Amino acid sequence: MSNFENQKMVGVWLENRRLSVREDLPIPQPAPGEALIKVRLAGICATDLELMRGYYPYTGIMGHEFVGEVVQSNGDQDWIGKRVVGEINITCGECAACRAGRSNHCEQRSVLGIVNAHGSFAEYTKLPLRNLHQVPENVPDEMAVFTEPLAAALRIQEQAHIGPSQRVLVIGAGRLGQLIAQSLALSGCRLSVVVRHAKQQQLLAMCGVSCLMEEETGSQSWDIVVEATGSPDGFNLALLTVRPGGMLVLKSTFAGHTTANLSAVVVDEITLLGSRCGPFAPALRLMEKNLVRPQLLIEKRYPLNQAAQSIEYAAQAGVLKVLIEPGN
Amino acid sequence: MSNFENQKMVGVWLENRRLSVREDLPIPQPAPGEALIKVRLAGICATDLELMRGYYPYTGIMGHEFVGEVVQSNGDQDWIGKRVVGEINITCGECAACRAGRSNHCEQRSVLGIVNAHGSFAEYTKLPLRNLHQVPENVPDEMAVFTEPLAAALRIQEQAHIGPSQRVLVIGAGRLGQLIAQSLALSGCRLSVVVRHAKQQQLLAMCGVSCLMEEETGSQSWDIVVEATGSPDGFNLALLTVRPGGMLVLKSTFAGHTTANLSAVVVDEITLLGSRCGPFAPALRLMEKNLVRPQLLIEKRYPLNQAAQSIEYAAQAGVLKVLIEPGN
Repeated sequence: MSNFENQKMVGVWLENRRLSVREDLPIPQPAPGEALIKVRLAGICATDLELMRGYYPYTGIMGHEFVGEVVQSNGDQDWIGKRVVGEINITCGECAACRAGRSNHCEQRSVLGIVNAHGSFAEYTKLPLRNLHQVPENVPDEMAVFTEPLAAALRIQEQAHIGPSQRVLVIGAGRLGQLIAQSLALSGCRLSVVVRHAKQQQLLAMCGVSCLMEEETGSQSWDIVVEATGSPDGFNLALLTVRPGGMLVLKSTFAGHTTANLSAVVVDEITLLGSRCGPFAPALRLMEKNLVRPQLLIEKRYPLNQAAQSIEYAAQAGVLKVLIEPGN
Repeated sequence: MSNFENQKMVGVWLENRRLSVREDLPIPQPAPGEALIKVRLAGICATDLELMRGYYPYTGIMGHEFVGEVVQSNGDQDWIGKRVVGEINITCGECAACRAGRSNHCEQRSVLGIVNAHGSFAEYTKLPLRNLHQVPENVPDEMAVFTEPLAAALRIQEQAHIGPSQRVLVIGAGRLGQLIAQSLALSGCRLSVVVRHAKQQQLLAMCGVSCLMEEETGSQSWDIVVEATGSPDGFNLALLTVRPGGMLVLKSTFAGHTTANLSAVVVDEITLLGSRCGPFAPALRLMEKNLVRPQLLIEKRYPLNQAAQSIEYAAQAGVLKVLIEPGN
């Protein structure tokens, strides 16, 4: 246990909305039931960018998407050497939500790199052992690093039944929208995605998903509309395109309040469904079977000491997945 | 068929948001498949008041809640003399929504006293025969006139499963909130209602429903919250009180846009469910069995020629049901 004690590591620190790459961060010490993980690859997500815009007042090491290797276990030693991904909600197991089987809504939760828990944009990170999932051998790091956002995409189908005859519109073809489209396409539903950038359309075409421009969506004609743009404009387009009695899935968070015509929700009996974190096991199964191709989204990789540049790059409009490689 | 032709009647006319009691209105002529109904009692609803505030640009005879007697049928003559209530959505039966069994969302629909169809604040009204339901003998007019709003209350349980162990909060104890509370109480769920007026609380107590003041609701602790205030304040209280993963039912319409924290909907995975018109048959069954007591809500009755005063009275804060009696 001792070889990581009192040692320093490199990590991306966020404080007062400013990030800095620091070399003096202590390597995390796993508490009982926790593992120390050497990060192999980490992914930059819209939530990271929102944190920098003040979506949540977070101070600490950023990052929640990663694949890594367990190097220390304060519990079952069988985990050591395993290649893993990790669920980001660190839960108490004891509150009413946890006891009701809704631990992702644990009242005491911390969230890796988002709420009260140092994240994965660092050489090492730690998580409870029960949060870990071993990565199947045939899933390369470049796929495994997408487990968390792919799980978030799959959360939609965990919450709502999407039938193979339904007309489903995904608004937004960015990082999350692409993964949502790839996973929804597997249901056989009649799927279209609203795109803004030619590159987004090309990627979807590679996965056999058809695209529409915003002006081609039609009015009130989709059984299910998924809002994945992270902007109020996307929400209002969703309200215009979902059919009466249909469902609007809200998949992206954005800072501040949104103005909406709630009377339309009542008169047209729309169901609005908020959707956040999802199940890791099916995400890994889909990748193991090569049924999804998240690695197509990778645009650029940066070494950890260029993390500031990597996040700046990821924040540009239309940029898909940017990865951070602590090993380089 | 001829005895109502070219005859005039009294009715409440809305035009440019102003109402007038007119005595020169033609008695409606039932088209094939329609009935002419002599109105016995009509009820004033929040939607009527919203129409006067410009919620929808309606011109014509107001009113959609009524009980009456069929005096003419342009179809099955067995309806003549029957005491009836009527569903308010007049549908085409041919559009995609109708064919999919969602005729309340008919794309071509008119709505009695709300959209393109003269309503029930008059001596006579007309509706398609297929919209009519015979009132059971033991249900007096004073109950039957509540069929439409009671059906709207029951719509909640048609859309969402409400289990007997669930904690359910109804926000608003006005006309609709009272009926929602009475019908939800029958599920055995753990029900509380947020009230503002002592009278509202007394009425609910008579039905065995417990009440809370707004400051007693607690935070994020209700499985299901029903918003029935018709105000943005009610919506925001609903968002604060529903638990993560819970459901917020939007039951009241209000003019204009509402500002809301949609990120909370996503992070807490709230389901927002818009809910409008409901099923008449179960509403009549509950009244036939005396399982609900809508007649407790009646505050005052006015003859038709005092309809202007009746609507003015109904618009006051805390006033429950005001009825119009065309026969007097």
